[in-house]
Formats: sequence, structure tokens, C-alpha cells
Amino acid sequence: FKLFKGRGKGGEEKMRLVVLGSGWGSMSLIRKLDLDTVDLTVISPRPYFFYTPLLAGSATGTVSQENICESVRKSIVRVPTGGIPQGGRYIQARAIDVDMKNKSVLCSVGSESQDMSVPYDKLVVAVGADSATYGIKGVKENAYPLKEVEHAVAIRSKLLSLFERASSLKTLTEHNKKPTQIDTEIDRLVHFVVVGGGPTGTELCGELSDFIQSDIANSFPDIAKRVKITMLEGLPRILSMFDENLASYAQSHLEERNVNIVTNVFVTDVGKTEAKLKTRDGKQNSISYGMLVWAAGITTRQLTRDLIKKIGPHKGQTSRRGLVVDESLRVVGCEDIYAIGDCAVSGLPPTAQVAQQQGKWLGRVLRQITTDAAQPDSSFRFSYHDKGKMAYIGGSEGIVEVKLPKNPPKIDYEFWRDLHAREPRFTGTPGFVVWRSVYFSMLLSARNRVYIGMDWLRTAFFGRDIVASPQPKRKNT
Amino acid sequence: FKLFKGRGKGGEEKMRLVVLGSGWGSMSLIRKLDLDTVDLTVISPRPYFFYTPLLAGSATGTVSQENICESVRKSIVRVPTGGIPQGGRYIQARAIDVDMKNKSVLCSVGSESQDMSVPYDKLVVAVGADSATYGIKGVKENAYPLKEVEHAVAIRSKLLSLFERASSLKTLTEHNKKPTQIDTEIDRLVHFVVVGGGPTGTELCGELSDFIQSDIANSFPDIAKRVKITMLEGLPRILSMFDENLASYAQSHLEERNVNIVTNVFVTDVGKTEAKLKTRDGKQNSISYGMLVWAAGITTRQLTRDLIKKIGPHKGQTSRRGLVVDESLRVVGCEDIYAIGDCAVSGLPPTAQVAQQQGKWLGRVLRQITTDAAQPDSSFRFSYHDKGKMAYIGGSEGIVEVKLPKNPPKIDYEFWRDLHAREPRFTGTPGFVVWRSVYFSMLLSARNRVYIGMDWLRTAFFGRDIVASPQPKRKNT
Repeated sequence: FKLFKGRGKGGEEKMRLVVLGSGWGSMSLIRKLDLDTVDLTVISPRPYFFYTPLLAGSATGTVSQENICESVRKSIVRVPTGGIPQGGRYIQARAIDVDMKNKSVLCSVGSESQDMSVPYDKLVVAVGADSATYGIKGVKENAYPLKEVEHAVAIRSKLLSLFERASSLKTLTEHNKKPTQIDTEIDRLVHFVVVGGGPTGTELCGELSDFIQSDIANSFPDIAKRVKITMLEGLPRILSMFDENLASYAQSHLEERNVNIVTNVFVTDVGKTEAKLKTRDGKQNSISYGMLVWAAGITTRQLTRDLIKKIGPHKGQTSRRGLVVDESLRVVGCEDIYAIGDCAVSGLPPTAQVAQQQGKWLGRVLRQITTDAAQPDSSFRFSYHDKGKMAYIGGSEGIVEVKLPKNPPKIDYEFWRDLHAREPRFTGTPGFVVWRSVYFSMLLSARNRVYIGMDWLRTAFFGRDIVASPQPKRKNT
Repeated sequence: FKLFKGRGKGGEEKMRLVVLGSGWGSMSLIRKLDLDTVDLTVISPRPYFFYTPLLAGSATGTVSQENICESVRKSIVRVPTGGIPQGGRYIQARAIDVDMKNKSVLCSVGSESQDMSVPYDKLVVAVGADSATYGIKGVKENAYPLKEVEHAVAIRSKLLSLFERASSLKTLTEHNKKPTQIDTEIDRLVHFVVVGGGPTGTELCGELSDFIQSDIANSFPDIAKRVKITMLEGLPRILSMFDENLASYAQSHLEERNVNIVTNVFVTDVGKTEAKLKTRDGKQNSISYGMLVWAAGITTRQLTRDLIKKIGPHKGQTSRRGLVVDESLRVVGCEDIYAIGDCAVSGLPPTAQVAQQQGKWLGRVLRQITTDAAQPDSSFRFSYHDKGKMAYIGGSEGIVEVKLPKNPPKIDYEFWRDLHAREPRFTGTPGFVVWRSVYFSMLLSARNRVYIGMDWLRTAFFGRDIVASPQPKRKNT
């Protein structure tokens, strides 16, 4: 008895495609499929895809956290017409094991008795990555990661409660005997430390400075001037993946906006209110804060680690950073399994752009296989075209590095040669305009476009909300 | 040394007004004050006011939970101009005691060492009420109350997770040996019980039926037909405060929309998945469900109970339902303390309309005291004008009961007499139009108007979200 064995248009059996994950790779892939010719099952504990470039903005309320999300189910489930189920199937579950011999995925929905096994003909692993702690003491317990929307929600909620707390204490100083002690506490509460000078950390600092200079200044006038933001980076400069001029532009811009940037420094221990630091030349130090955000890189997820071990180094899985894939994105050492995005090791950086291009490409290939019955062979090769990179740096400024296609148009336009010679870069307001336009055009659904556009207008006209989204509660207040 | 002793326009000391709470009473009062002539402090653990009539809609996503909220701080804090603080002060804290002799309020911000005492010249208690459990076993642990936005968030999140759960199980039945057992479980998961046939319970059932017939039908086509909604009411009919014809219209309308209404029944025990029931004539029964929502009335908050006890019955605090107030809304038995809204006992029902009118009236009186130095005497008397009541009942229908002012205009228009004779009532779509228009006009800020309007449009064009708002999380997924 074969589960999910559907029938294709012509009556032949449909290929059962199982996709693990709901990030850039997975969603880009799904959109390229023809759901009439493939039997699609998406398995992910997170029922929504979200726009990673808007994550930092959602942590301060520039965009609403709900509006950067897009339901996986809504993207693939179709209402049956005439009793015939159409579209794909979504299962909210965590994939915990892959049985490569019997070609099935074991999923957990929480209680073990209801674990279920979902069979596949082709499997795509697109589970992404976790935020890395590097085994540093206290990171898991005390730092706030910024990798998922839920993290952004936690950061925003903590941020606002710290301001409310500081404001209450300010009131207390007016009739307290130890004002100095309380003042020290207020300064600690409104000191925000961001660990990691990559794009995420940089964008968060930019967004934080916006939030403080406009909304906090309006609603917490006594507190706003006392806020401090510190960014810690282990390398000699921030944004090491960017061109040096752009990175140093970003650094001076952030410093002008009162972000204190410290490079060549490592965090060795994260406490509730204080972290221990060590500089590259061995000096030790400590820093106290109201909140410490951890945006210092990624690591593999449990499933990825399990699969690497299961296939084994003798079959080619020799990397600790993810599943080694060949030029067709097939996982080396097994059959009918593909990996894309941050969980795949293909010599490309773990970015949204790579995941998106891999997803699109693999989606097209799978579509050809299912609609034209073409067989994937070595002629199917993924090639990456780096379009450049961008980051928002606060105060309506951005930095943008554009990479042009390697193959210029055949006609030798002077304009094109000129453009190529300059390798276009944007900073400041033009950078911001490019940043917003590009990301706006990347939004997939009409709904998200309308509502993120509205969010930007709201922020411009009414300012950001200074009340955190109400959290679920079952008890009376 | 007197804390918060500000100075008024003419150099005289400003009156220190402390308001406890952030609901209809408190917000309506604050808006009537002249913040230049009064030294205002608002104390409430909830940093936002919210539109109670839209609460049921926010539990299913018709309107976004953030958009029905309005920041207290934003309403009262002004940016200082020329170094002089303006506007009011907001403290996020819970008032735990009132020292009537020294005229100060003790507030808790969480940790006892930082409890603070805030002095007042006049105090307004507007702390509202809690959801009542009537001491019934299991209500606190297992039922979902619907009184705060946080409750609506919890209900929506639970609702969506139940559908995802049922959908996963549906997949499981396709290759399971005990399909009947799993089918029973699915039916339990998508059975929603609403206890209480008042306006809240009725509106929730209406909203639930909308949500299921449109959004769930689209995104969970296999599950939607199996959903059941049951409303339980102890009285012989639902909406007992409404005109009987309107209530029976609402009942038939809801029944047509597959809401199963059971009257004359009491809940005696609420378990995780099953509740025990007893009918008015003594029969016992039980009912199983995925979620049980408790919308069965209100009770006093801890602070209110403490104050009643502190003042004592010998001084006139003889009610267990709240603080007895006189015709000027002064708390009987003490000085310079007022109570409004659900925590006050004045012979009026505990509704938003009463709280709002009391807040407006008291705000105007306090404004006169502070600006004109008028003294409140017995000539200040609050009188309530019942404008009628409304409820949304699903399927773009509403019921509306309009009460006309007791004193008709002096000129004896025939139109007016005619209107009075009919006591206007609306049901169906006209009722819905009136419901929406009235509540839209009650929204206080431009921001809320724009964004709730947008929410209604979103629901109409794109449907409701079927992904719950991401919840704060500090751990990796």
C-alpha cells in the first residue's frame, strides 16, 4: 500500500516529492513546480516563510512581524474542485529521520505515539541552519538570537519592557535615597549590545538607532538620551563580506548615529546582565547591558548533522558545515535526495540569494522531470550568479554592491562597458532607495506587498508602535 | 518633600491626579483633561488600551490584534519643549494598595525591592474586572478566557494549531490501522465550545463561523466540514440583555451557520479535553472539545476587593461586586477617590458604554476643577444615557437596539414621535452596517482608524491569516 500515490494528468502515477523546510530555498522551489503533475508534501515545524531581509526591521516595529510572514499552506493547498484534491499537502511537523532504504521521512508532531512516516520518490532537504553559539557559556540561556521571526518578537518585546522599566525607575529616583545606584541601573537597562558585525547585526544597529532617535525620543523623552548601542565584532572590521569602502562608510555612519563599534573582540561568557570579553591581543574586559543580541553566525541543524553521519564520510559527506552536494544539488552518497540553501555545502555562502537561486533552479528541473518525463543527467548543472549585496544602516541610508552578469550583452554598448568598469555601488539615500525597491520587488504575494507598503507608510506617518504585540495568555491579569 | 508637585499655568501648584487602569473609563477620562493644568500619572500593568468590541474579531484574525490596541504612553506623554516636561506620566506597574491617610498608591513593578509609592491629590480607580470562574473546577487551568487581547492571541494561536494538528492526523489516517480512533480524535480537536451566551460569546461564535466557512474551508478543505461549534448558556435564552426578538433572530441566524446552541445548561467541571455539564433540570452530561472558551461573566479584581475590605461595610462598602460610588462617582466612605467602569457599583451594568460615559463625565469635572478652580459639589451629578446595544452575529449580519434620548427636542417633529414609537432596531446586513459604522467612529486615533479599516479590507480581499502571530522565543528552533 503506497501512501500519497497520486495520479498525474494522463493517468500515470505522480512523483511524490517531499520538501523539508519553509525558507527561501523551499519556497522558491515550490513556486516553480506544476502542482498538477507532482504529488507535493511540505514538512516544516514553521508554518510560514518569512522575508529575512526585513527581520531586523521587524525587531523594532518598522514593519509588522505578521506582515513579513507568508503561510506555506496558503501557497500550496488548493480547494478541491469536483472532489479531486489539488495542490500540495503541508504537514506541521519536524523531520527527525530519513529512511533512505525505504525512501521515507520520519516526522514528529510532538508526541511520539503520533510520529508519522511520509514516503518520497524525491526528497529535498532545505531545513536551513541554526544560530551558532560556538559553545560559549551562557549564550543559549542569556543572549537573544536573531534568526527567526520569533526571535524578533522576543527582542522587540524585551526592548519595550526595558524602556518601561527604565522609565519606572526614573520615577523612583525622584524620591529615592540612592539616586546614583538607580541611575547606574537605568543606564544598564538601556544599553543594548549586538554581537556580530555581519549584515544582520549591522541592520539591527541601524534599525535600533532609528527607533531610538524617533519613537523612543518622543515617548520616553527622559530615557532616550541615555540609550547606548554597542556592536562587538571579532574580525578587524565589520561587514567583512562587503567591499572595504562600503563597510567603512557603514561604520562611520553608524558611529555618527551613536552606535559604539568595537572590533577585534570576542565574547567569552554571557551572563544575565554582564558579558566577559577578550580582545584579540588578549586583554580581558566586561560589559553590562539590558539585552545582548547574538547575531554571530550559523551552525547546522540536528537533522543535517544526523544525515551527514548516516551517509558517512566514506561516501563523501566530509563537511561539518552541511550536506555536500554535487553540481546538480544532489546530496553526495545517496539517491534521490537533494539539498539546497544553508544546509547544503556547495562552495557558496549561506545567503538567502544562494538558497533562492538554488530553489528556483531545482524547482525548474523537477518540473521538467514531472511534466516532460525528462531524466536529470549531468547536463543539469546549477550555476550561481551573484547579483551583489545590500544592507540597511539606519537613518534612511543603505549600502549596495551590485555585481553585473559575467556575460555582457553581445552588442558592445559603451554604456555597458562603462557600467562594468565602475562596478556600481551605492551608499546613503540612493543605497536606501535601492535596498527598499529591490526587497519590495522580492516580496512574493500581493498581500505582503500591500501590507508591508502600508507598514512603511505607518512608520513614516505615525511612527513605530511602542507597545509590544500582546502575547498569548490564558490566565486573568 | 513632595513628589510630582508640578506647577500650573499661573505658578500655583498643579493637582496631582493618579488614574489606575487603561480601559474605557481611564482613557475616556484622560482625553477630557487639560494636561497643562493637571499633574497626571496613569498606572496600569497593561501599557495599552484596546477596543473591546473588536476583541472577538481579533481572536479569529478579522482585525489584527496589534491594531485594536492604543498605547497609553503615546496618548499622554509629550516631548518636553524648552526643558519643561509636558503631558502626563505613565508607569507600567500594578497598583497593590492605597494608603488613604497619606494619600498615596503603592505600585509593584515585579520585584518587591522596587515597589514604589505614588502620592495623589485625587485618585481615580478604573481597574476594570477579571473574568469570573465562579470557583468551577478546572476553569482556571483548562479554559480559555476572552477578556483581554492576550486572551484573543492565545485563542487564535490555539485555534490554528488545532487545525494544523487535525490536518496532520488526517494524513496519518491514510496509512493507519485504526482510522476510527484517529477520526474520533480529529472530531474532538475541531470541536469548539463557547461557554456564555452574552455578547462576547455570541460575537465569538459569529466570528468563528465566518472564519471556518471562508478561510478554513479554503486552506483546510478536508477539515472544515468536520468543525463543530457549541455555545452553552445557563439561562433559558442567549443575549438575555437584548430584546427577545433580536436575541431569537441571533439564535436562529447562528444555528443556520452551524452553531449548536444549548441553553439551560451549566458547566460543573472543565478538563483538558472534556467538560462535565448539568442541565437546569438536573441531568448530567459531558462534552469533549479541542478548546473551551470561557466568556461567562466577570468578577472583581484583587485591588478592588482589598479596597472594599479596607474601607469597610460600616462606611458604606456593602457590595461584593465592586466599589460603591455616589452620584458624583466618589467612592463612598473615603475622600478624593473616584471609581468608574466595571470596578464601580452605581446601579449600572458593567459595559464599555457605561465606563466610557463615566470617564468622559469625570474627566470634564476634573478639568473644571483644575482649570477653573471650581469645587465639586452635589450639583455635579453623573447621569447615564443608554444609547442601546449591538452585537455582531457572523455572516456580515448584526443586531442593533437603539435607545433614543429621553428628552425629545422641544419642537414636536412628527418624525421624532414616529421614531420614538418604533424604538429602532436593526437585524441582518443593516445591523452589520450600523455595528461597523458605530464602532469605527468610536476608534480614537487616526492610526487605528486607518489600520483597522485596512484590516477589514484585507479580510475582504485576501482572507484572514491562517498562521498565528509568531510568539517570542529565545531558543533556536
